[in-house]
Parts: sequence; C-alpha cells; structure tokens
Amino acid sequence: MTSAHDLTTSTSAPPADADLATLMHDMGQRARRAAGVLALASSAIKNSALRAAADALRSGTDAILTANAGDMAAARGRGTKGSFLDRLALDKGRIEAMAGGLEDIAALADPVGQTIAEWTRPNGLRISRVRVPLGVIGIIYESRPNVTADAGALCLKSGNAAILRGGSESIGSSTAIMSCLQEGLESAGLPGDAIQMVPTTDRAAVGYMLAGLDGAIDLIVPRGGRSLVARVQDEARVPVFAHLEGVCHVYVDRSADPAMARDIVVNAKMRRTSVCGAAETLLVDRAAADTLLKPLVSALEGAGCEVRGDPMVCAVDGTVVPATEADWPKEYGDAIIAVKVVDGVDGAIDHIARYGSNHTETIIAEDAAMAERFLERVDSAIVLHNASTQFADGGEFGMGAEIGIATGKLHARGPVGLEQLTSFKYVVRGDGQTRP
Amino acid sequence: MTSAHDLTTSTSAPPADADLATLMHDMGQRARRAAGVLALASSAIKNSALRAAADALRSGTDAILTANAGDMAAARGRGTKGSFLDRLALDKGRIEAMAGGLEDIAALADPVGQTIAEWTRPNGLRISRVRVPLGVIGIIYESRPNVTADAGALCLKSGNAAILRGGSESIGSSTAIMSCLQEGLESAGLPGDAIQMVPTTDRAAVGYMLAGLDGAIDLIVPRGGRSLVARVQDEARVPVFAHLEGVCHVYVDRSADPAMARDIVVNAKMRRTSVCGAAETLLVDRAAADTLLKPLVSALEGAGCEVRGDPMVCAVDGTVVPATEADWPKEYGDAIIAVKVVDGVDGAIDHIARYGSNHTETIIAEDAAMAERFLERVDSAIVLHNASTQFADGGEFGMGAEIGIATGKLHARGPVGLEQLTSFKYVVRGDGQTRP
Repeated sequence: MTSAHDLTTSTSAPPADADLATLMHDMGQRARRAAGVLALASSAIKNSALRAAADALRSGTDAILTANAGDMAAARGRGTKGSFLDRLALDKGRIEAMAGGLEDIAALADPVGQTIAEWTRPNGLRISRVRVPLGVIGIIYESRPNVTADAGALCLKSGNAAILRGGSESIGSSTAIMSCLQEGLESAGLPGDAIQMVPTTDRAAVGYMLAGLDGAIDLIVPRGGRSLVARVQDEARVPVFAHLEGVCHVYVDRSADPAMARDIVVNAKMRRTSVCGAAETLLVDRAAADTLLKPLVSALEGAGCEVRGDPMVCAVDGTVVPATEADWPKEYGDAIIAVKVVDGVDGAIDHIARYGSNHTETIIAEDAAMAERFLERVDSAIVLHNASTQFADGGEFGMGAEIGIATGKLHARGPVGLEQLTSFKYVVRGDGQTRP
Repeated sequence: MTSAHDLTTSTSAPPADADLATLMHDMGQRARRAAGVLALASSAIKNSALRAAADALRSGTDAILTANAGDMAAARGRGTKGSFLDRLALDKGRIEAMAGGLEDIAALADPVGQTIAEWTRPNGLRISRVRVPLGVIGIIYESRPNVTADAGALCLKSGNAAILRGGSESIGSSTAIMSCLQEGLESAGLPGDAIQMVPTTDRAAVGYMLAGLDGAIDLIVPRGGRSLVARVQDEARVPVFAHLEGVCHVYVDRSADPAMARDIVVNAKMRRTSVCGAAETLLVDRAAADTLLKPLVSALEGAGCEVRGDPMVCAVDGTVVPATEADWPKEYGDAIIAVKVVDGVDGAIDHIARYGSNHTETIIAEDAAMAERFLERVDSAIVLHNASTQFADGGEFGMGAEIGIATGKLHARGPVGLEQLTSFKYVVRGDGQTRP
C-alpha cells in the first residue's frame, strides 16, 4: 500500500486560505446543481456520455501522455522510485484500458429508478421503494491517474456528481483525463460540473472535502493506502465507504481436503499479494496440524512466500521465522504469511475476532456443520467456504465494477458497486387516503 | 417538539470525570460482548425474552408507577409544566400499552438471517447476502419513559444490543422499565447487558456516547426535539439515523379534485399537529388559486387552524395572517399552516427544494403526468400522490414498528424499522475455487 504522499506534499503555490475556501465552496455548489440534473438523466443519456468520454480518452491519448510525462518527470525530480512511478505511469495500453472500462460501465444495468420493493396496504396505498442517486460523492485518491476515469464513471452511471481529489503527483495526468470525462458529459448534454477535480494540490483542500463542503458532499470514498484511509475515517464529517485494511484469514479445518486446502491457501496468499483480499494469516486446526501443517508450509515456501509461525509451525521446518505478536494483526501486502495453530473452528473464530479487520475470511472444510458455524460467527463483510479470499472483488461478485470495498456495516458492506452508490425514496400512490 | 432539557440539566451528583469515562467504556465493552451473543440468538429465544419482559412490565406495574411518581414530583418541584409533565406521566394504561408493544414486536418477522439476495457465478461460487445485526445501538432520548421499552425491544428483536440514555427527568421511571427488559432477557437465557441504561444524569455521558464509546457503538438514534437531534448530528462520530425536522408540504395542483384536496389538506395538517409527518406548508397552483384557495383556507380555519399566507392568500379572507420569510422553513408542530401560491408543479418543486427538510411531501392532482413529475423530482424520503403526509409512519407502511424516521440518504431513509436496524454480510459457498 502507498503512503498518503499527496496529503503531505504540495507542488503548486497554495491559494490564500480565503480563496481556497471560496473555491471549494463553489465546487460543492456547482456539483450539487449538476447532481440535480444527473439524477434525472436517462440511462441512454448517461451511457452516451460514458461512450463519448471513452472516445475522448482515445482521441486525447497524446495529450494525456504528454501530461503524464510531465508528472513522471516531476516525480523523478523529487527522487520518487519504483512501484510509485509504476502506479503513476500511463501508456497507450493503460489509456485504452481506461476507455474500455468506461464502455464496460456504460454496458452495466442502471440502478437508478429501479423498484426495489413494492406493496399495497389494506387502505389501498401503493408503496414502492425506488432507487435514487446519493447526490455528490467525493473521491480522494493517490497516485493512480486511472482512478479519475473509473471513479468518475461509476459516479456518473449511478447518477451522482463527483468531486475528485487526486494525488498531487498525478494532477497533470488526472486533469487531462477529467477533461475527457467532461467532454463526454457535455457532448451528451449533461453538465460538465458533474465530474470536477480539485484544481489545486493544496492539501487543505482535503480538509474542506472531509468537512463536507458546507453540506454539498453526501459521501466520501478514499482510494489509497492505510494512512490516507485512516485520515479520512478520522476526520470526515460525512459518511465514508472504505476499508482501513484487509487482514484476511484462511482457516483450514481438520475436515479439509488437503489438496484443496493447499491450492486455496497458495492462491489466497500468492495470486496477488498487494490486493486487499490477499490472505495474511493462515490458521490451522490443531487436531490435524500433524498432517496439514507441513504440506501447507512447504507449498507456501515453494511458491516463494516467507512463513512466520508460532512454535508448532516453526517445528515443521527450519526456514519458518518465529512470529511475534505484531504479526497477527499485520497486513503484509507482500509474499509473507503468518501461520498459527488454533483449537478448531472456535479457536479460528476467536483469533479472527481479535486480530481481523472484518474484511474477508475463508474456511476450508468438508464438515458442513463446521463451515456453517464459521460463516455465521465470523463478523466480516465477506465469509467464504472452500474458496479463495482473492474473490473479494466486485467484478468477481458479478457487480461489473467496484469503487472499493467497505468494511463498515452501514449502507454498503463488501464490494461497493453501482447499487451501493445509490439511495432510495418511498413513492406512495393513493386515491385520496387520509389517516384516521 | 421538546427542548433537549435532559442535556442541560443534571439532577444527580456527577461522577468524577475519570469515573465516568471508566463507567461508559465499561458499558460499551459489556454491550459489545452481549451483542455477540444476541446476534446468534434464535428468533424463538428473542421472542421469549420480549414476552417475558412484557410480563415483567405488567407484574412490575406498581414499582414502575412508584418510580414515575418520584420523577413527576421532582419535575413539579422544578416548576415543570403542561405537556412536558404529560409526556413523563405513566399510568396503568400506558404500562399495559408498553407491554402490548413488546408483544407486538415479538410477533413481527425476524429480519436476522434472512437471505436478501442470492446468485451463482459462472465459476460455481454461490453468493448470498444475509441480514445480520448492526451491533450496538445507542438511543438518546428525552422525557418519554416508554421509549425505553419501544427502542430497547426493537434493538433486541433485530439482534442488536442497546445503550439507552434517557432524559434525566425520567430516569427513575426508565430505570424501572429497563429492569423489566433485563428480567425478560435473563429469563430467556440472554445477557442482561444487551439492554443497558446509562445510570447517571451527567450530561457528559452523552458526549461519550456520541464519540462511540471507544468503537463500541455502531449507530446512534436520537429520539426527541430539534435541539437534541441537532446536537447529536453535529457531534456524533458514529452514524446517526434521524430527522432534524419535518417541514412537510402539500401541493394542490390545478388538476386536483377539490373535495379530495380539502380532505387531505385538513388531515395532513390537523389530524395530529405534533407529529413529524404533519403538513406545515400548503402550496396552491396559481392556475387554480381563484377556485381552490378560498375553500382550502376556510376548511383549515374551520378545523381550528391558523393560516399564514402570502398576499394572494391574505386577499381571500381577513383572518389570514401575513406570512413572513420565517414562515416558509418553519416546523410549527401546532395548529398553524403557511400557505403560498406557486407556479404549478415546478414552482412547488422549487419551493420544496429551497425550504423543505427532505422528509415527506404530497401532491394532490388528477393529472398523472404532473404527479409523476412531482414524485420523481422532489428529493424527500417519502413522496406521496393523493394521500395525506400523516401516513409517514413505519406502522402505516406495514413495518410493524419504527424507532424513528430518517431523512439521511445512507442505509436508512424514511421509517426506521427492524430491517433498517440490520446490516448484511456476503456468504460465499464454493467447492475449492481459486481465482485465476
């Protein structure tokens, strides 16, 4: 995970405080007005805006790459290195992927206007619960410029206005991408203000967003590393959809099929180690530790994973690093796993309650009763049986696209897709009913 | 609406700050543990606790009345008067109503464990979205002791632990009622800590709750007047389900049936003037003001309502009081209504957007296109066509019981019943799937 680099550096001269306050307030008011228009836009119009934005990205590839080259040069000039530069870098393939992503979102079902439920009361009142947009969504992100397109498009499709605040390092690239989105909006007859980007790298702008821009922002979605998410969760005065971390667990029960356990453990940890659904801790049932531990540790090590273990795990193999208390709540985001022997499913449930992050956990077991106990008692957004934690993803859930994963329990939990970016209203149709 | 009287007075010696901090932290931890037990309790066990609590209320009637007499005497001693005393007062009928209310909640369907949606992915993963309790709910209320029973029971049925903070004036009555709830819980084998009441009237306790009791509280529901709700919304660091006010509008379109309009206007305003769904403003279409205004004003005045109007309304009748700008956003909560002539449905929509509270609005119209335009464009939790705003109520919606009405757009909107007091988790069942 990246650090919240953009929150602590400022590459442009900050505006005077009063100017910034006015700028941010004004953005909020314009977003609110645009949201009112977008909320009533038909699916066809919104999809036409998304497709036009995809075309604008393609035809604007050279301009975007030029802006990106400027961001890259500035980052290199500051001594930025490695994975950070990789996240910042754009090429033709990445721009085409963004354009394709917009078209994919255009092809998804529009949640707005869907009737979620309807019923008729004995007095004849017909009540329906109809999806409506949330309003204005603030997105605060870091170096990846493609978040500009992904998050902006998900907000547009769900009928919400977006106020984007990208990392200062990528502001040139993000501004170029945002111009394409605004071009798409305007070519479809929608207000360009429906997707705005904070035009300054002054980090005080984030504070204004977290305060809600005088009531103009309905929701904040942070996209980035732990320190960014922590700041947003601590300071936001409006609702936040986020996960602080993903300390995901795999529990291998005594009843597990050993080959399935091996495959899932290696996949959950090693398929991609940087995603939030990657496993960080393996819990093994004491009743079968003698037979299960060694092959699991060997498989992980064979896949290039460092294993840190409790004393029983260390006894398996001389290459296991002794785990300390600090390992159990740790999100490595890397090819490292903590392994512990626990007393059956209840031991696993207790360990997860103590050290987990309420994100995603899986049980590998043939015993259906043990599996149901785990699924019921583990208090995480996603609980799985005999499947990899790496399925924690909106696309894998069939939602089409996600803006992130939420571990809070209010409104959105788990993958946050288009539906989760909507609210609803009650529409009641009568023929003159008064209340006795 | 009452003032937040309990937040500004303190009738018992406050504990030392450190003691209060410890007390509140400890309540939160006990609630959290109890929530873990309650989340797994079967419907039968929870219903048995509710029925036992109803029995305990009935058999404890004398003790509750004695405690209430103490609260009443203290209130009279402070010079408290009128409607405040009426809200505080209990008698056998009100206690029986509370007991019956618990039995009604026992008879409702249990939302916990319900499968909201399920689908199978092409790779064979079976995904279901299952309702789970939210966790620990803080209820902050004022003088009505019956909120103790109603709110506690709704939390219990939805599998949530409750931390109740009643008004200082009713603490004797509320404590006696809470003891009956705890008796019910324990007789069903559930932890009494699942419903706790803050045992001090120190108003600093509210501050601890609004800060979330060190992560122990998942949601706050304020029950009371505007100043209480405003304080909770301003200061809470956890989600809040509430409405600050209910400035509800009736719009009478040129196409309205005049008799239906008259009946609905009088009912929306006068059935009960103190409820949040009572109409506060009547908007009349300019195109039919000549024919509609006079009978509507006469009907309201005939029902005992004071009418405050714009110049056109004042011209109808010498008894109409000229309205000022302060009347349009006003929640009278009394037999007073503001009346304005607007330019058709769009004029009504604009007025509501400017002065409304996003609670409940109705259009009276025979023209279906005008009605649909209003229903779509008015951004309120509840929008009605040809029905009274006084239907804004969980019971009237068929939810069985409500803990309040929410005007926020996240998670709960409109009446907050049992379902709205739950979250969900994703349960994913596989047979060895790993992610490619």
